[in-house]
Amino acid sequence: MNPSGDEYQSLEEGEVGLVTPQDFLLSAPFTFHNGSRLPGITIRYETYGRLNDSHSNAILICHALSGDHHCAGVHGVTDRKVGWWNHFIGPGKAVDTREYFVICTNCIGGCQGSTGPSSINPETGRPYGLSFPRVTIEDMVKAQAQLMDYLGIDKLHAVIGGSMGGMQVLEWAVQFPDRVDRIVPMATTACQSAQAIAFDEVGRQAIITDPKWRGGSYLPDEGPDVGLAVARMMAHITYLSDEGMAQKFGRSRRASEGGGANQDPFDVEFEVESYLRYQGQSFVNRFDANTYLYFTRALNLFDLPGRDSDRRLDRVFEIVKARSLIIGFKSDWLFPPSQNRDIVHALTQAGKQASYAELEMEMGHDSFLLHAPELYDLVRGFLVSPNLVQS
Amino acid sequence: MNPSGDEYQSLEEGEVGLVTPQDFLLSAPFTFHNGSRLPGITIRYETYGRLNDSHSNAILICHALSGDHHCAGVHGVTDRKVGWWNHFIGPGKAVDTREYFVICTNCIGGCQGSTGPSSINPETGRPYGLSFPRVTIEDMVKAQAQLMDYLGIDKLHAVIGGSMGGMQVLEWAVQFPDRVDRIVPMATTACQSAQAIAFDEVGRQAIITDPKWRGGSYLPDEGPDVGLAVARMMAHITYLSDEGMAQKFGRSRRASEGGGANQDPFDVEFEVESYLRYQGQSFVNRFDANTYLYFTRALNLFDLPGRDSDRRLDRVFEIVKARSLIIGFKSDWLFPPSQNRDIVHALTQAGKQASYAELEMEMGHDSFLLHAPELYDLVRGFLVSPNLVQS
Repeated sequence: MNPSGDEYQSLEEGEVGLVTPQDFLLSAPFTFHNGSRLPGITIRYETYGRLNDSHSNAILICHALSGDHHCAGVHGVTDRKVGWWNHFIGPGKAVDTREYFVICTNCIGGCQGSTGPSSINPETGRPYGLSFPRVTIEDMVKAQAQLMDYLGIDKLHAVIGGSMGGMQVLEWAVQFPDRVDRIVPMATTACQSAQAIAFDEVGRQAIITDPKWRGGSYLPDEGPDVGLAVARMMAHITYLSDEGMAQKFGRSRRASEGGGANQDPFDVEFEVESYLRYQGQSFVNRFDANTYLYFTRALNLFDLPGRDSDRRLDRVFEIVKARSLIIGFKSDWLFPPSQNRDIVHALTQAGKQASYAELEMEMGHDSFLLHAPELYDLVRGFLVSPNLVQS
Repeated sequence: MNPSGDEYQSLEEGEVGLVTPQDFLLSAPFTFHNGSRLPGITIRYETYGRLNDSHSNAILICHALSGDHHCAGVHGVTDRKVGWWNHFIGPGKAVDTREYFVICTNCIGGCQGSTGPSSINPETGRPYGLSFPRVTIEDMVKAQAQLMDYLGIDKLHAVIGGSMGGMQVLEWAVQFPDRVDRIVPMATTACQSAQAIAFDEVGRQAIITDPKWRGGSYLPDEGPDVGLAVARMMAHITYLSDEGMAQKFGRSRRASEGGGANQDPFDVEFEVESYLRYQGQSFVNRFDANTYLYFTRALNLFDLPGRDSDRRLDRVFEIVKARSLIIGFKSDWLFPPSQNRDIVHALTQAGKQASYAELEMEMGHDSFLLHAPELYDLVRGFLVSPNLVQS
């Protein structure tokens, strides 16, 4: 079986094509939600399409835990790795770059160019490590808003994202109600359940207990790869579904089955084991362990209902002005449909326009990242729908 | 919150009381399912109640992955840790020790007294480690049968167990159809799904990649505790349920919440994290990492449908003579109700007497270990039901 986590594919006609990431350097101090401050930050981002004269056609894409700013196109003729949402964004696609100016940032705290724990602290000349301030979803959105200021975008036509990206989408609607017309949160939650927090915690423990983690002060290329790979393997199971894995792997064995007296008894025996090991290994080549810690903690801390003293999400949403299309996936057991429906119900209770779709795709939480014509149609229609003013 | 994994409780009236584990030394060679052979093995076991004159009142209890032979009573006045199924087994309880002679063994490959990878290899004077033969559910049952021979028990009144114990129960019915009258498999499966195999594999990877594992050749007290704790933490989540964890922990915080600039940012923040860390730590104090590897592999390899060329479980069950009571738990997503129902359907298709109960308990896979009056009534009734001869 061909592991399909990081797929390389050739570009077809109608693709975004070559893209060059850019860096937004904010030289003013950035104050985090917990009061910590950095003298300046960098936000790496990509854009596709063209900003119109009225600056009214901008769409912000928000990435999930392991994503980054590269969501469409390719970086070069020799670097043909397409962006993680390339089938969703491009000329003529669901998010049509002939119509919209699309922006995607690497979140603050990230490891793909934006300032994060692996960035060099100018005061010490070494990576920040754990001296990096605690990062929250609020901080990610605040940094994105400063990039919007820089780009001259007062109001976004839409903000779209899944999972941790969906949390940012919700945060945009609440933190900057006047700056976003439409939101599309997918496969997300207004606050994680104990089970989701628990999985994140085990991933963190795998990293933190790796001797190479060194209290977060590891050097580049000497990080806790083993712990990070285990964390990723486990998390990857939670992104799929029982039925999806049954279809994809079942109980298929590798060609050389174990059990012989002279064979390594814990070598790969089932296809699913091979797949997971590949997922773990490929992840450590592209991701920073401390960012993994920071981002999973940001997921845990996101608690929209907690902003009301009675934990009433509808009250938290009273401020929202954006129209919303919420999308849940039946087979998603990490941020299950019920948690997506809670968002819809609270928005509706607060008197907001909110549509909900629950898709039947079988691949679990990661369904939002897959080829999904039904999803494309929903989003395409929502983006062109008239912009009704809300109270 | 008081972590409740290993509960200490005082014995009440009607308890089994003081119990002394015994060792069964099989001095003849033991041949494993894969053809490997050991010159002799030890099986540690406990018994409660009295074997009647006709030797017809024996019930075998089979333990799950992390269990052992100590399923009822206490070992001493100073060692008051009660057996893992103490509320289920005892005078007047569901498995009534005034009526039945109850036996529970530590499975072969285990680490609580039975021969396993941490046992000393007489040829080298060091623990077997990975030179220990591959262990299967078939081997566990074969070793138990040899103990039954030694105890003079030709036929068991019943075999009862959950999870990996449930696999042994099914294996008894198939491997020794003439030696068991009734079977009670709970929260189990005739073969694991890809998702369950995947979780086991991540646990193994956590152990194997711990530098202290040393290819399985670690010395006692110098084992891969860190990897084993991570494996246990992850597995523990799969033994519970989303709703169960929501009820038990929700999003409760520890008293000292993180986020301050000077605090360890990845210290315990949520109650569920504290609970999981406790589960991981207490497990390494009582369990051997290599046994964890061997037992999880035994779980993966168990494949009853695979014994028929068309994977027809009903054909595999044609040989069964025991009556069965299968019990699934609605909230169990590791070995979900559908997999328990598959067993019932196949037994019924094969023309066997099979009853099925699906209990509403909310604590997931581990529900079978909890206080459950409905479960007690079911089992109590099934054990006294008339023994109809089957074809």
